[in-house]
Amino acid sequence: MEHKPRYQYIPVPLRQVQITGGFWQAWQETNRAASILSVLHFLEETGRIDALKLQWKAGDPNQPHVFWDSDVAKWLEGACYSLVQHPDAELEARVEQVVTLLAASQQADGYLNSHYTVVEPDKRWTNLRDRHELYCAGHLMEAAVAHHQATGRDTFLNVMRRYADYIGQTFGPRPGQKRGYPGHEEIELALVRLAEETGEERYRELAKFFIDERGTQPHYYTQEAISRGEDPNNWHWVTTENEVSKVDYRYNQSHCPVREQTDAVGHAVRAVYLYSGMADIAAAYGDEALLQACERVFDSILHRRSYVTGGLGSQAQNEGFSEDYDLPNADAYAETCAAIGLIFWLRRMSQFACEAKYTDLLERALYNGFLVGLSHDGRRFFYSSPLAVDRQADSRYSNYQGHRAEWYGCSCCPPNVNRLLASLGSYLYASNDAEIVTHLYAESAADFNLAGGSVHLEQHTLYPWDGDIALELAPEVPMTFSVRMRIPGWCDSFTLEVNGISFDAQLEHGYLVLERQWQAGDTIRLKLRMAPRRVYAHPAVRVDRGRVALAYGPMLYCLEGVDNGEDLDRFVLPQGALIDPSFDPHLLGGVATLEGMVQVPQKSVSHPLYQEKPYPYELKSFKAIPFAYWDNRAEGDMLLWIREA
Amino acid sequence: MEHKPRYQYIPVPLRQVQITGGFWQAWQETNRAASILSVLHFLEETGRIDALKLQWKAGDPNQPHVFWDSDVAKWLEGACYSLVQHPDAELEARVEQVVTLLAASQQADGYLNSHYTVVEPDKRWTNLRDRHELYCAGHLMEAAVAHHQATGRDTFLNVMRRYADYIGQTFGPRPGQKRGYPGHEEIELALVRLAEETGEERYRELAKFFIDERGTQPHYYTQEAISRGEDPNNWHWVTTENEVSKVDYRYNQSHCPVREQTDAVGHAVRAVYLYSGMADIAAAYGDEALLQACERVFDSILHRRSYVTGGLGSQAQNEGFSEDYDLPNADAYAETCAAIGLIFWLRRMSQFACEAKYTDLLERALYNGFLVGLSHDGRRFFYSSPLAVDRQADSRYSNYQGHRAEWYGCSCCPPNVNRLLASLGSYLYASNDAEIVTHLYAESAADFNLAGGSVHLEQHTLYPWDGDIALELAPEVPMTFSVRMRIPGWCDSFTLEVNGISFDAQLEHGYLVLERQWQAGDTIRLKLRMAPRRVYAHPAVRVDRGRVALAYGPMLYCLEGVDNGEDLDRFVLPQGALIDPSFDPHLLGGVATLEGMVQVPQKSVSHPLYQEKPYPYELKSFKAIPFAYWDNRAEGDMLLWIREA
Repeated sequence: MEHKPRYQYIPVPLRQVQITGGFWQAWQETNRAASILSVLHFLEETGRIDALKLQWKAGDPNQPHVFWDSDVAKWLEGACYSLVQHPDAELEARVEQVVTLLAASQQADGYLNSHYTVVEPDKRWTNLRDRHELYCAGHLMEAAVAHHQATGRDTFLNVMRRYADYIGQTFGPRPGQKRGYPGHEEIELALVRLAEETGEERYRELAKFFIDERGTQPHYYTQEAISRGEDPNNWHWVTTENEVSKVDYRYNQSHCPVREQTDAVGHAVRAVYLYSGMADIAAAYGDEALLQACERVFDSILHRRSYVTGGLGSQAQNEGFSEDYDLPNADAYAETCAAIGLIFWLRRMSQFACEAKYTDLLERALYNGFLVGLSHDGRRFFYSSPLAVDRQADSRYSNYQGHRAEWYGCSCCPPNVNRLLASLGSYLYASNDAEIVTHLYAESAADFNLAGGSVHLEQHTLYPWDGDIALELAPEVPMTFSVRMRIPGWCDSFTLEVNGISFDAQLEHGYLVLERQWQAGDTIRLKLRMAPRRVYAHPAVRVDRGRVALAYGPMLYCLEGVDNGEDLDRFVLPQGALIDPSFDPHLLGGVATLEGMVQVPQKSVSHPLYQEKPYPYELKSFKAIPFAYWDNRAEGDMLLWIREA
Repeated sequence: MEHKPRYQYIPVPLRQVQITGGFWQAWQETNRAASILSVLHFLEETGRIDALKLQWKAGDPNQPHVFWDSDVAKWLEGACYSLVQHPDAELEARVEQVVTLLAASQQADGYLNSHYTVVEPDKRWTNLRDRHELYCAGHLMEAAVAHHQATGRDTFLNVMRRYADYIGQTFGPRPGQKRGYPGHEEIELALVRLAEETGEERYRELAKFFIDERGTQPHYYTQEAISRGEDPNNWHWVTTENEVSKVDYRYNQSHCPVREQTDAVGHAVRAVYLYSGMADIAAAYGDEALLQACERVFDSILHRRSYVTGGLGSQAQNEGFSEDYDLPNADAYAETCAAIGLIFWLRRMSQFACEAKYTDLLERALYNGFLVGLSHDGRRFFYSSPLAVDRQADSRYSNYQGHRAEWYGCSCCPPNVNRLLASLGSYLYASNDAEIVTHLYAESAADFNLAGGSVHLEQHTLYPWDGDIALELAPEVPMTFSVRMRIPGWCDSFTLEVNGISFDAQLEHGYLVLERQWQAGDTIRLKLRMAPRRVYAHPAVRVDRGRVALAYGPMLYCLEGVDNGEDLDRFVLPQGALIDPSFDPHLLGGVATLEGMVQVPQKSVSHPLYQEKPYPYELKSFKAIPFAYWDNRAEGDMLLWIREA
């Protein structure tokens, strides 16, 4: 056991952080001005808001779906975070309208679910395995916490306390209680947040019950299926094709008790939501076995089961994990929600120990696997997103052309994007009594409460386009504390100055530790050398063999058809070839591009089909853009893993 | 128009050629002693022989299938050829038993088909599109010709003359005749053979009718479907997935009149059988447009639609062609029958002009795409065969593990292997009044009938394992003629001597022309330099980019698991690396192997999933064997296109 199973660092809450400019402020503004409103529009248009009125009757259109409440909840949560960063009376009014509907939809016993209340009123809690009831409850709890934090009003929080209490009566180890747990995890982490916001320990205990019960025998989902009169073995979620076990509870991570789990398996969003809850419970109860399980699945993801973009999920069949090193590109699942859930979980892992292995992957997922999920105009979203698109390639292998859509039938991702972007400030910094941590770099200001008093900090940077970072510290009184500054894993060289003088700081697990007495006006200047890099994949990843990914700062790059033409897989990047970065202020709001020359073999029909010498090639300039920014211009091919000579 | 649309060269008939030793004699002996008997065993066991007794009744097992007669016919043809090369009283007795059954199964009007006679007696000629009636008739005609040539008896030939006459009454342009043509081509080339064997021009005319009528409007298959009360548009053979046209008559090459056809399309076996018939008819009638169509589809195959092994067919859906340069390896269809049909056709093309472009592809198909179809013990056959097997690779992309089987439900390939192997002697040589042609090299003897008299020739060689070829000529009187000797396209250097003295011969279209007065005892010595070669695929072939195939002589080579371990796609062959050939007399009856060193990246789980430098590799020796010889030892992976650094 490396770490104490207790959180050592607490994120600086959203109210105490402001993103004040630069890269993420622009994205937050897009989120506020476009994405959040667009998602609300579709919530309304598809009947998800009206569903809360509980007026649906058999035969009506827009039958409330089992997961609809969660879409509303995530939007609400995102809107509330946005209000924290940017007051907006109109948005707040919309928030209150929805909260009022939700509150009014609560049943006398505390139950709150638009589907079950009107569509299947006699079926409550009869199919935890498949039907998202506890999942929706969890998202509503998170929304209620956010609403309380954003507005100070406890209307919605009280609604969800009542619902949580009702769930706590229904589920538990005591006689007459159900020993079930959610088929789609989420409520575990939500109950912990509810406990933190209300101070009510019983919500955390309920979360622990769900965590502890998961995957035990006799298996709840088997018993539950029998109770429904169904064959419990007639339930298929393949993990890899041709590997259809009769029942594979890996799909929802209930194949064994969570403390015995080793690899990240099954539905990827379910997995990372579960792991988030496990981390919270491990920290709350000092549970070493639970933290060890988190570390094992983390290793599984970091070393064998994640895309270079931080995307998770190698196959559509289970929307999730397949096998070690199975990371197809054209058929990548890489659901936006999975990148988001990974970020949730990794922030929690970084609370155990300030180690860059967690935050490097978090940053990679943030700038790539997550951000690719949103169009530059904020109105279109990827659900799953490929790492390669070749429209002429054999359609036997992939039909997916890769375009963001405004909405999906299962539209979990758009409101999830809303809430992560709006709450991003809370991912930048953490602290404890005597330490300030800068996990991520962004133009921002934050207030820390250390044991010796408060510290105001301002960060100035053009990150991710530039590696120059300035921190201005303003402790209320001069005091001794440490500033831990992450040196990103992508950075091989940096300089550090304090008040203009070179400063020699220890590097611990990827974080510089600057310990001294600080006083108002002190400035730290960290310069991260930023240069184009070539990234290689482990030789066990079959599809990436002989290929290289280009990176610059925290971003992975790709070739897009609109810049480079079609059939990008022809391009061969010579191993020593120069790659030039440049910032293009006119491209998609301003992005850094990478340019160079590639060998492009001629596809002339006059050449023979086979010959005994390599085919001639021409040198051709290429332009790579950040992976997160593709599919915002003309339709075309895209390639991240480029062939290398 | 390059060539005169008349055959300029006639193959030396099987009776006048003897394969006297070496590579092909061993395979012919395997065919005679194992393959032919094994196929007969399965013909009997599956009821195909009994079906000829016409005793099947509804409810009985082994209902005669529409293509069963063709399986029997091809076996019969192969057995007869074998009798020509190697008299065998027992085999001849079995042949006569089958011939007797066939003769007895002929109906009073001449009709002969085991399926339609007993299963659907009222459905004769009602579904030419799908039901193989004319196809079976064609194979029976070829068998009858072979039987006549082998035994001198005309029993079976007369049966098939009667059947052909009946077909000639049924089909044709006159009032009351059907204007149909076969859904599976074959009878066209068979009718030409029947015409040649009997001297009856009307059979050739009937073949020409079928050729001419094909693909004309109103479309026969559309009319025929309507006559059956079916929707003619409810007939799907996709050419590429997602490209399902309502009706795609490309499947059986009836999408347009044959003289307008450009690309090789549809079912590959159907295609090459049709092209064989087209060549015969073009030659017989001096039909330039028809020969031009043959040249166009030849170009399509040679330059854009064939595997490096001479295999044809890129997809299982239509058992055939897909698109230009679409040549997947693990999912290659490459049906053994298609390689055989290609060889049939290319021999015909070489009769128009002695050009190596035809015979190079013929040889490539013979030593690779065809020969891989038969196991070394002669008892197992590939129907389709992959160019790569990776058992650990993602099963989403290919489940095909690639093993030969003793028999198939649709078992067209095994007896087709029988007949090509047994008749191979007739592919070696051709002649006309004043020229002798050696197309293929093999230990053999042949008798030519030139205008000036007969010439006996003996060829001595260890080909394909060695490029040293000696021809001993024995004209009955000294006479002037040309000997045309093919310089294989794979050979970049050779020496030529006549009677021990260097001889300076013109190279015309890949054939040396040795014109002089020859007399008994003259010897020609041709030494083809044979060295390991690297073959590259056109850059438009996506799956072969960055890869190389190894070749030696006419054979393509592959890595097999039993020699090299698993996951062969890790192997990277450096561009300049030495490749050593050596003959291993103990391996599978004696084959040349290629050995060298490859870079093999370490797949250690301790290496990170991504890193910013190439992963370390070890040098490892590899051993490649001829592609045709894989899958004869322990099960494992196989790879033809090796990654190259």
